[in-house]
Amino acid sequence: MTLAVRYTSARTLDTAPVQCAPPGPGEVEIAPAYVGICGTDLHIFHGDMDARVSAPAVLGHEMSGRIVRVGEGVEGWAPGDAVTVMPLRWDGTCPACRAGHQHICHNLDFIGIDSPGAMQQRWTVPATTLIRLPDALALDRAALVEPTAVAVHDVGRVGVAEGEKVVVVGGGPVGILIALVARAAGAEVRVVELSAHRRALAEELGLITWDPAVEDVPARIGEWTGGAGAEVAFEVSGAAGGVDTAVDVLGVRGRLCLVAIHPRPREINLHRFFWRELTLVGARLYDRADFEKAVALVAAGTVPADRLISKVVPLTQAPAAFEALEAGGDVMKILVDCTTTDAPTHLTDNAARGTAI
Amino acid sequence: MTLAVRYTSARTLDTAPVQCAPPGPGEVEIAPAYVGICGTDLHIFHGDMDARVSAPAVLGHEMSGRIVRVGEGVEGWAPGDAVTVMPLRWDGTCPACRAGHQHICHNLDFIGIDSPGAMQQRWTVPATTLIRLPDALALDRAALVEPTAVAVHDVGRVGVAEGEKVVVVGGGPVGILIALVARAAGAEVRVVELSAHRRALAEELGLITWDPAVEDVPARIGEWTGGAGAEVAFEVSGAAGGVDTAVDVLGVRGRLCLVAIHPRPREINLHRFFWRELTLVGARLYDRADFEKAVALVAAGTVPADRLISKVVPLTQAPAAFEALEAGGDVMKILVDCTTTDAPTHLTDNAARGTAI
Repeated sequence: MTLAVRYTSARTLDTAPVQCAPPGPGEVEIAPAYVGICGTDLHIFHGDMDARVSAPAVLGHEMSGRIVRVGEGVEGWAPGDAVTVMPLRWDGTCPACRAGHQHICHNLDFIGIDSPGAMQQRWTVPATTLIRLPDALALDRAALVEPTAVAVHDVGRVGVAEGEKVVVVGGGPVGILIALVARAAGAEVRVVELSAHRRALAEELGLITWDPAVEDVPARIGEWTGGAGAEVAFEVSGAAGGVDTAVDVLGVRGRLCLVAIHPRPREINLHRFFWRELTLVGARLYDRADFEKAVALVAAGTVPADRLISKVVPLTQAPAAFEALEAGGDVMKILVDCTTTDAPTHLTDNAARGTAI
Repeated sequence: MTLAVRYTSARTLDTAPVQCAPPGPGEVEIAPAYVGICGTDLHIFHGDMDARVSAPAVLGHEMSGRIVRVGEGVEGWAPGDAVTVMPLRWDGTCPACRAGHQHICHNLDFIGIDSPGAMQQRWTVPATTLIRLPDALALDRAALVEPTAVAVHDVGRVGVAEGEKVVVVGGGPVGILIALVARAAGAEVRVVELSAHRRALAEELGLITWDPAVEDVPARIGEWTGGAGAEVAFEVSGAAGGVDTAVDVLGVRGRLCLVAIHPRPREINLHRFFWRELTLVGARLYDRADFEKAVALVAAGTVPADRLISKVVPLTQAPAAFEALEAGGDVMKILVDCTTTDAPTHLTDNAARGTAI
């Protein structure tokens, strides 16, 4: 048995012992160390994904940990290895897989949504999902590799190039990571974000931010780009107004990367797409190359993952952390420490500076 | 003086004599032969573009004709040369022009909307707008070069490749031309069109059509593509339902080319863009390479332009033709014959088969 954070019904989580099967052929058993709470986990917690999630469901897919046991036939991995997991299982036979886009398999099993996730003391996954972590990379930072892989994928989908002007609409964890990855690709970046706390964190990371409630964003874009408009925008807010902003900031042939999930149809200014020959590119998840690049960026500190960690809570306090996130507040990323059920093991520098929930 | 078709106010056209300035330096005077009536001309006729069009305005931008006189400094052109016109003047200094996208210049002068068009007996334009027509190409067919250039541009914007499955939503003149150009690029094409008349014409051209009022389009797409979805869709209908169809037919990484003008925002299923990593590409107008390819396709008969001509009317009957088009009916393309003010000079085979208005 292993203690796990389980979604049981809308707005209800518990921690309870669950069965932990020993690793079968091709599988490994991991001791998760840190697991980030993601926006998708919050959607599940809201009850918005009940059609897809079979309660009770163990959550978590942004993780780091160490291998405990390897199953039959697993080569190249050994107990003690530090790993993260690319939480995707595809069928290999659907049209998406046959076209080489396995990460958007028609029958994708997203581990942590469609099957049990990482917020538990022991976790068994296929060895094919493992991504090796360098020894020098602290495991708390490594829990940010998964959302960084999302950012790497998004930046790659629109091909951000050296010197391009990029607007990121929405400065939550994924928005900040996109901004950092785009900056690492040589872009000039502006982050549009309503939350003063999130803007302050972005500014600490050297990013320039605009508050859309105060700034005249089109006017600022005009000044910044000499009237041309930006080359690239990322819509990471999930809000209708965010979509409008992302369309409006683009110059001719501008590319808009759609990152946020918009469950309901949104009104779009298609005339602007026609008039300026804009492109909209949907981006979902990542592939192994994205993950490996994300490991390198986090390990090098190009993506200073530690700065995004607002708080670390023990496994047993994860339900309370979800409720606090649900209530909003000045927070970026919360990690669940699966190695302890006691009081918080550590507060990060950010939390010590008063940015924790 | 030259007799011209003029837009004077909403739903009102006349034919009246207008001044025809002799060609200045770098200009040529053309005797237009045939001028097609375009959807944009109908928008102007509706009064929808009064903010942009200064009445009285001479309409027309899909044309063929012969040079009558050349102005000072014009080289390479002589009276009698058969030409069409790429009706664009750009400022050369705006951000779009500096980025090499002159056709979507921020201050574009679209000749026939923003300045006097071709529906007149004499027309003076910059020599830089001229496109040479081969002697063997009949001038009535050549009037279809401009909308064919639109189609070439659209197909190029989404890079239709050999063997790809392409859905064209909307089977009016531009939709049919896109279907023909995509087929010439090696694509398999389906045209979704409500009008029985337009479907019948498309079928005569060897295109397979679906009536969305009768067919279960998603089911047909599933059968056709083995459940994968189409690689490319063109939205040429201008209707909200057309946008939905164009999104729904696409498989993973599918590309949607937005051709139609949607003056008002449209609701879009952005979740599908995310989920399948779709791309939306706006396409507007054309460049010189598109025009030259269009001339070649029409001249070779790959685009059988004559089959799209429903009727040819003399200049003085153009106002009545607009009213008939406004009323709807079984019609594809109507040409205005600027060389005569008398009764119809000829009916095409299509008109003779009863497809004229």
